[in-house]
Amino acid sequence: MVNLKVVAFILGILLVITAAFMALAAPVSFFYGDGDATELFLSAFLTALSGFLLWAIFHNCNKSVGKREGYLIVTLGWIVISLFGSLPFTISGAIPSFTDAFFETISGFTTTGASILHDVESLSHGLLFWRSLIQWLGGMGIIVLSLVILPILGIGGMQLFSAEVPGPTPDKLHPRIKETAKRLWGVYCIITLAEVILLWAGKMPLFDAVNHSFTTLATGGYSTKQASIAYYDSAYIQYVISFFMIVAGINFSLSYFALRLKLNRIWRNEEFRAYLSFIAIFTLLITLLVAWQLPSQSLEKTFRDALFQVSSIMTTTGFATFDYLLWTTPAVLLLLVLMFFGGSAGSTSGSIKIMRVMLVLKNGLLELKRLIHPNAIVPVRIDREGVKPEIITNVLAFVTVYILVWVVGVLVISFMGHDIHTSLGAVAATLGNIGPGIGKVGPMYNYGHFSDAGKWFLSFLMLIGRLELFTVLVLFTPSFWKK
Amino acid sequence: MVNLKVVAFILGILLVITAAFMALAAPVSFFYGDGDATELFLSAFLTALSGFLLWAIFHNCNKSVGKREGYLIVTLGWIVISLFGSLPFTISGAIPSFTDAFFETISGFTTTGASILHDVESLSHGLLFWRSLIQWLGGMGIIVLSLVILPILGIGGMQLFSAEVPGPTPDKLHPRIKETAKRLWGVYCIITLAEVILLWAGKMPLFDAVNHSFTTLATGGYSTKQASIAYYDSAYIQYVISFFMIVAGINFSLSYFALRLKLNRIWRNEEFRAYLSFIAIFTLLITLLVAWQLPSQSLEKTFRDALFQVSSIMTTTGFATFDYLLWTTPAVLLLLVLMFFGGSAGSTSGSIKIMRVMLVLKNGLLELKRLIHPNAIVPVRIDREGVKPEIITNVLAFVTVYILVWVVGVLVISFMGHDIHTSLGAVAATLGNIGPGIGKVGPMYNYGHFSDAGKWFLSFLMLIGRLELFTVLVLFTPSFWKK
Repeated sequence: MVNLKVVAFILGILLVITAAFMALAAPVSFFYGDGDATELFLSAFLTALSGFLLWAIFHNCNKSVGKREGYLIVTLGWIVISLFGSLPFTISGAIPSFTDAFFETISGFTTTGASILHDVESLSHGLLFWRSLIQWLGGMGIIVLSLVILPILGIGGMQLFSAEVPGPTPDKLHPRIKETAKRLWGVYCIITLAEVILLWAGKMPLFDAVNHSFTTLATGGYSTKQASIAYYDSAYIQYVISFFMIVAGINFSLSYFALRLKLNRIWRNEEFRAYLSFIAIFTLLITLLVAWQLPSQSLEKTFRDALFQVSSIMTTTGFATFDYLLWTTPAVLLLLVLMFFGGSAGSTSGSIKIMRVMLVLKNGLLELKRLIHPNAIVPVRIDREGVKPEIITNVLAFVTVYILVWVVGVLVISFMGHDIHTSLGAVAATLGNIGPGIGKVGPMYNYGHFSDAGKWFLSFLMLIGRLELFTVLVLFTPSFWKK
Repeated sequence: MVNLKVVAFILGILLVITAAFMALAAPVSFFYGDGDATELFLSAFLTALSGFLLWAIFHNCNKSVGKREGYLIVTLGWIVISLFGSLPFTISGAIPSFTDAFFETISGFTTTGASILHDVESLSHGLLFWRSLIQWLGGMGIIVLSLVILPILGIGGMQLFSAEVPGPTPDKLHPRIKETAKRLWGVYCIITLAEVILLWAGKMPLFDAVNHSFTTLATGGYSTKQASIAYYDSAYIQYVISFFMIVAGINFSLSYFALRLKLNRIWRNEEFRAYLSFIAIFTLLITLLVAWQLPSQSLEKTFRDALFQVSSIMTTTGFATFDYLLWTTPAVLLLLVLMFFGGSAGSTSGSIKIMRVMLVLKNGLLELKRLIHPNAIVPVRIDREGVKPEIITNVLAFVTVYILVWVVGVLVISFMGHDIHTSLGAVAATLGNIGPGIGKVGPMYNYGHFSDAGKWFLSFLMLIGRLELFTVLVLFTPSFWKK
């Protein structure tokens, strides 16, 4: 049987941590004096109280956490902190509808960045800060989840990136989970701080710099401005954010080595090279297409827009400096394809991820080789080491299921009365944790026009996309609940 | 080294066979007296001559045919008969452009049915008959290819359907290839004849009945009427054609058993049951959607249109009785999804095929089971027998590569200046050997508006789609040509 008590106990701890961060947003509110400090404190208090209650009731339980408990904690964890995380929005009245507030919050914690707000700037500083902090916390959760927890659970080939499992593991950070988490979070904080400083130096107000740094590192994409990064008419700021989006899409264990100046370990990493190559190729293609479409625009601006939008979509951040739907059709399609790439495994980005894209491509090519030499053993190699066939099957199953979920999602959304582009885009952008899509969820639109049913459905897609599908879907199988 | 001489020798034989059938079209032309009899004879003569030349030059060669020769014969075979098969169209001047004539012919031999003609009825009876016969011959080729040749070559999990390979083979028809081919062709001819009689009985003119039966059994979809089956305002005719499209989408080795009244063998077949279930589910969904969209239309007509279009798209035939692009968005999306299904393996239909769709779905579900019981061996079962893991990997690789080719194809077509819908539709409909797609290649349009480059590219997609991708793609690998 699943040990539900320990699940409740750990959810209690998660709520207390969430409450602590929520309380941090209150002084910000107080400092700017534009309201919502009390509401934030109240929300934090209610969250902490609920957390302590769970803790108090269940702290004597059997603490053994198996795989099943693991899946349940991860999924329920994201749901429960989203429920409580939405309190400041509902209590303050900034987002009166519970559905909307929940959508906005789970979109934050899953680092998606799909918003129902059509006037972000009307929010108080406290709420804006909390909204960005949600994404930053979500990013922290994802790093530990993808580099420490999921490899143990064995989800969709994530073993590949584990420090625990033998085989082509990237780089053994530190055997102990706690230490690993601490170091990764240290890296996360240092890079966030670096971005704050560089943005501030580029004359972005400190408040905006902090918020955007939070949501860049999380590849979340919430902005304090309705126009997103297009608000800042500064090439410097746009290049800085492009750079940090790209950094946030790198496996954080590589960034750890980068900070320790072990640069050769990074360049030897095949996924890293593939990741940069994809960014370069897509940026080049889109630059050429847009330069041909808008010949009067300066080439620097065209390149900058292409680089920014490619980095933003590929890392699943979702910031925008330009309404890319105005670009020529093939450029839009290239971005739509990128929505299925994602950044590196072990980063905060969502979607399928480069490692899996690489494995699919390599395995496809090797399938041809295997046809000619049917008796030879032709393994897929990553970083020069053969990948076990079971992992290839895991990865291929993940990719096909990802596409199936997308297809079913598109059908469901179209049944709700949305047009083809919007359906294709909204599902790709929520399942992939990107935010803006195509059609009526393009970068100049928001998700406010969906029905409540649509918002709950898209929230579900954000959740399963964020948690690598199987973590959530496994809860719906009868054998999960059997002895 | 690849034995190119035996390849040329066999291509010679293929050309002589093609010429014999081409010569059959000449008397039809003569009988109706509307021209092109001489042109058909001349084309047949030139084709036969080329065939005999190849035969004469190479008939003393080493006759050993290995795997590599197999791949080369299959791919070049389809190309060479399409080149010569287009002669009647160019020599008669009915299709003056060589590109157009080749497109029309390879679209026929691959049983796609994508046409560049915008006035089919202006063709002479002889040419119309040849055009339908091309599809019927293509269908004959595909049955033998998919049930006899590809299983030996081991393409994309086709071993599953082989009568030769141990494992979950469907039903051992007859050990010897020649006998198997003969029996399958017998079934093909008998069913074609049955359709001719039933259509004729329904007051379709005999000429039309023969042509439509040819192109139904091939799941090709060429019609003698520009309006396709919508021309015949007869519920009887439309139901008859729906029925035979569904039959043509069944594994022909099952139809062989059906004709021998071994019905229990058919119902025991899991792919068959899944195939019928998918048709039922999609027909029901679309009937409901369209009934809600067009409440004044009789429910029988709505159901008939839904059944016809679902059968046509799913079996990759491509006949139409209604411009389905006028349907509500989710119904159009359902058809777009169906374009990736295809009929059963071992039928004349193209696309991914039900067996592979089933394996992907089953494996996805089992992946969840494997997460909970990581040490248990949980094989995918088809017809109650476990499928070997290598075959699952083959199938998953096929499906992912199929989707990759589609995505790259869509990008290429959009680069040529086509809109998103047309690009998505044209590539899905040619790669899947369907014919009509969505956008400007919908059932009321044709492919005449593509540039020559576009037509050659789409021809290539029809070819690789028809030959299960890897058969063609393997020729582009360096290791194919190495010793």
